[in-house]
Amino acid sequence: MSDSADGRRHVVIVGGGFGGLACAKALARADWRITIVDRENHHLFQPLLYQVATAVLSPADIAAPIRTIVRRQRNTEVVLGQVVAVDVDARRLRLADRTIDYDTLVLATGATHSYFGHDEWQPHAPGLKTIDDALELRRRLLLAFEAAEYEPDPDTRRACLTFVVVGGGPTGVELAGALIEIAARSIPRDFRRIDTTTTKVILVEAGERLLGGMPATLGDRAKTDLEHMGVDVRLRHRVTHIDETGAVVGDERIPAANVFWAAGVTGSALARTLGVPLDPAGRVIVDPDLTVPGHPELFVIGDLAHVEDPATGTTVPGIAPAAMQMGRHVAATLRRRPDADRPPFRYRDTGTMATIGRNRAVAAIGGRRFTGLVAWLLWSLVHVYFLIGFRRRMFVMLSWAWNYVVFAKGARLITGRPPTSSDARPPT
Amino acid sequence: MSDSADGRRHVVIVGGGFGGLACAKALARADWRITIVDRENHHLFQPLLYQVATAVLSPADIAAPIRTIVRRQRNTEVVLGQVVAVDVDARRLRLADRTIDYDTLVLATGATHSYFGHDEWQPHAPGLKTIDDALELRRRLLLAFEAAEYEPDPDTRRACLTFVVVGGGPTGVELAGALIEIAARSIPRDFRRIDTTTTKVILVEAGERLLGGMPATLGDRAKTDLEHMGVDVRLRHRVTHIDETGAVVGDERIPAANVFWAAGVTGSALARTLGVPLDPAGRVIVDPDLTVPGHPELFVIGDLAHVEDPATGTTVPGIAPAAMQMGRHVAATLRRRPDADRPPFRYRDTGTMATIGRNRAVAAIGGRRFTGLVAWLLWSLVHVYFLIGFRRRMFVMLSWAWNYVVFAKGARLITGRPPTSSDARPPT
Repeated sequence: MSDSADGRRHVVIVGGGFGGLACAKALARADWRITIVDRENHHLFQPLLYQVATAVLSPADIAAPIRTIVRRQRNTEVVLGQVVAVDVDARRLRLADRTIDYDTLVLATGATHSYFGHDEWQPHAPGLKTIDDALELRRRLLLAFEAAEYEPDPDTRRACLTFVVVGGGPTGVELAGALIEIAARSIPRDFRRIDTTTTKVILVEAGERLLGGMPATLGDRAKTDLEHMGVDVRLRHRVTHIDETGAVVGDERIPAANVFWAAGVTGSALARTLGVPLDPAGRVIVDPDLTVPGHPELFVIGDLAHVEDPATGTTVPGIAPAAMQMGRHVAATLRRRPDADRPPFRYRDTGTMATIGRNRAVAAIGGRRFTGLVAWLLWSLVHVYFLIGFRRRMFVMLSWAWNYVVFAKGARLITGRPPTSSDARPPT
Repeated sequence: MSDSADGRRHVVIVGGGFGGLACAKALARADWRITIVDRENHHLFQPLLYQVATAVLSPADIAAPIRTIVRRQRNTEVVLGQVVAVDVDARRLRLADRTIDYDTLVLATGATHSYFGHDEWQPHAPGLKTIDDALELRRRLLLAFEAAEYEPDPDTRRACLTFVVVGGGPTGVELAGALIEIAARSIPRDFRRIDTTTTKVILVEAGERLLGGMPATLGDRAKTDLEHMGVDVRLRHRVTHIDETGAVVGDERIPAANVFWAAGVTGSALARTLGVPLDPAGRVIVDPDLTVPGHPELFVIGDLAHVEDPATGTTVPGIAPAAMQMGRHVAATLRRRPDADRPPFRYRDTGTMATIGRNRAVAAIGGRRFTGLVAWLLWSLVHVYFLIGFRRRMFVMLSWAWNYVVFAKGARLITGRPPTSSDARPPT
């Protein structure tokens, strides 16, 4: 794309997530030509993805076309396409069917699942990063109850009603809580032969506690809350094997038709095409100004960036507020004169929160801790507020209000592959 | 499934569409054991499916789990599964992984696309019968604009912005109207390089007029309305060829990246396993009481049934109200004593309607004709009213209200296969 010799410099932002979009929006009035490249046509509000997986929300409730988000921003173009490689020296991106030259590049492609070297687990333990992931989880979860309803063998039926969630971070905690609520509250009356309230949800975490990124008291509270709801929480346990019949947790084999993966993440594959140093989690180690060492024109932000926080000596966490702060920091840098000093990025902790279930959440905001109903209300407000676009905000609030009143889950559709119950059965 | 010797007779209803569900609900208090078998887990409000295809509504807005619809009906079970064959003599259904014995069978599996002997057209001209169909149409339609935006060749770009809709019945009319509205009103500002208002939508109908099932004046009005909106309506034209580069209409080759099929339907394949006479459209020719001749225990209803209307001498149309009337008629028959006389089914024409666009529809109700805004308001009211479940009603009304105000389409997500723009390009 060289049809642009209008004198303005060209910044290409790869990834329309929280970081990439924040950067683009902060450059709306800057004297830059902006191109956003994403392999999906939509920005995804990932913190609510587990609600699509658990049939509370529809995909369109938590996603919006990137084009529409930036439609009023006349200096910005959007390209739907997958970046295959970055030629750092030539300042050129290679896509499947074209190349894009840049003056400055912002990589914000995020992270993907990591199975800790066990990629063979992936088909049996899907993760939750994209809308298609969420729809696949929803399909599997709903089919499990369908398969159980007509399963004559009690052991196989028990396996159909057993869910193992691997990973005790926010996604794992939220998924486990939502699963037990569906089974215990939303669907019992839909079935005639099985008692869905006997569903087992087992949350496995290798560490000492849940929600490792949050204060210890909140991780403990999350555990108590989940156990009160009926989740079997196993700390200091490792999953050592996963196949189509279940998982091995420590030394125990757990027959389960469904294992969901909410554990490891690794920087997106694009990072490995750069030829620059990565940390063990596949993230690009960047300088304090968020550029790759030796490449002042190459920024990396969001979950793909390994950034040391000079204030605390720790790594900036891979969460949406951090990504947005980095995006805005890069935009501020680009708005300066090219030869100006570049201030270092400083992470401002705006708080972390995780929801657990109806009326239950935990939140750490500005040194204060919240639990229970107060945290849950805070969580709801914050998440609705940040959902992009008024329409989405209004609909999500109504969906939640409705679900709260009637315990229904409105999006309980099995779509995708032809859903006959036979293909949901574990082949025991 | 023979674990049911409780003395009640067992009716199995295959198909949870309008006909099958109406039958099951009308038997809620009857002394029958009811099993509904469907290959999907949800009832689909098919008349609004085109709105999912055109990104106005989400799948969950127009579909609800069958289990949930009948959850309070204790004499009713739901089986998710595909019926492979009916053994009429043994009164037994064969599914992929089990068999189900019945005393009475109600077949309500509807119709599917027919490509008039040209099944090779199917991959290039997808139809619109299921949620997955609708999501595939949505994906193709949104990718067409993405591909056009960066297509350097003007002819290929023009093909990306050309849509051919085959079939001038309600689905074809509604689809054509929605397509031109998206292109002309919803998305122009999203794109930088193409002018989506130049999009061509060509509606091809072999007959003398649109909406053949409705009064002629309304078909004419639909044509005028569509042409006013910019649709190229071609009556008395046949599609003679379809491939990945476009369609041949009469003698003219129309380069088009997308051809959508809204023409022929044929009775679902299950009918052919019965060994009973079918009409040329693959529908089962039933007696006036809706049973298969010689089989008083075998009912066929809805789009799968070929029923003569004694009042008019015509065939009862394949629309939702007719299917629901047939379902209730069968239920009334089953509630009588087994040896009672069986009254013939009489179709009551409750009206037909089709929407065309913003403020435009046509409706024929009880001998009266409505067009324009009045018809459109009627259409909206009727469709919202019949949507099952309060939640859906409320959300659909809000979606429509919102779209009406801002011309937005809220569900413009490309999901499914990895959507890189390269795979949307016609391989010219």
